[in-house]
Amino acid sequence: MQATDKAYISGFLDADGSIYVRLKPNDSYKYGFQIAPSIVFFQSKKNESILKYILDLVQVGYIRNRKDRIVELTISDIEGLLTIISLTKPYVVLKLKQIELLEIILRTKQNISSSKDFLQLAKLIDKFEALNYSQNRKITSKNVAAYIKRNKLI
Amino acid sequence: MQATDKAYISGFLDADGSIYVRLKPNDSYKYGFQIAPSIVFFQSKKNESILKYILDLVQVGYIRNRKDRIVELTISDIEGLLTIISLTKPYVVLKLKQIELLEIILRTKQNISSSKDFLQLAKLIDKFEALNYSQNRKITSKNVAAYIKRNKLI
Repeated sequence: MQATDKAYISGFLDADGSIYVRLKPNDSYKYGFQIAPSIVFFQSKKNESILKYILDLVQVGYIRNRKDRIVELTISDIEGLLTIISLTKPYVVLKLKQIELLEIILRTKQNISSSKDFLQLAKLIDKFEALNYSQNRKITSKNVAAYIKRNKLI
Repeated sequence: MQATDKAYISGFLDADGSIYVRLKPNDSYKYGFQIAPSIVFFQSKKNESILKYILDLVQVGYIRNRKDRIVELTISDIEGLLTIISLTKPYVVLKLKQIELLEIILRTKQNISSSKDFLQLAKLIDKFEALNYSQNRKITSKNVAAYIKRNKLI
């Protein structure tokens, strides 16, 4: 991919994209929570073609038509996220901190070997959510700490 | 400006920008209508910094805080518009047709020497509005034709 394609995608992400990392309660996971990261590009249905254009360039993620005539290009698998991170990191401006922190979170996630590690990861996610000014957030590292204690996972 | 800066701005424009050309009834103009072109970049108030960043790069236009906590970077002078057109034309995707047609409209506007020329320009603006899927449009080339006829400007 050309540098200008990467820069174009970075501008698009800064304007109409979102970067998320969420802690989802899920007992089937060792420490009681799933880590759910995603990068999403949004457009109205009439401009869906541009999301297909971006999908064609990045070759990761999938397009989803919402019921409210918004179309999303969502990337949520680790490899896909690392692809988007690596191509936007040199050019993204507004969301640079989120991109950098998401990369740290993904790398940290791949090296969890104790509940202490997992709690550290949850705290990085708190930090990420603060960057996103997330207001209706419910699950924080405090919930993770409580789960670890309650289930004697320390 | 680097090619990647231009591509970044193009991605931003495709995602969160709008390109307008309007016919505004105004008797002080020779043919009864003002041509009002503009390119606007939008962001929420909390992300105003990115519009300042773009303004700093392009050095044209001005930032306006709306009452609804949306901030706009608006370019509406001809020289500024031609600057944005020339830097985005190689990289813009979704709005390429608008950028190309706006350039034609601005060049045409600079060479009006008869009511026939002006009517041709108004028809280009009709074409532009069709690209924008503009739905609440009131003034078209038909109004211009009527004004020219009514005022015996032919």
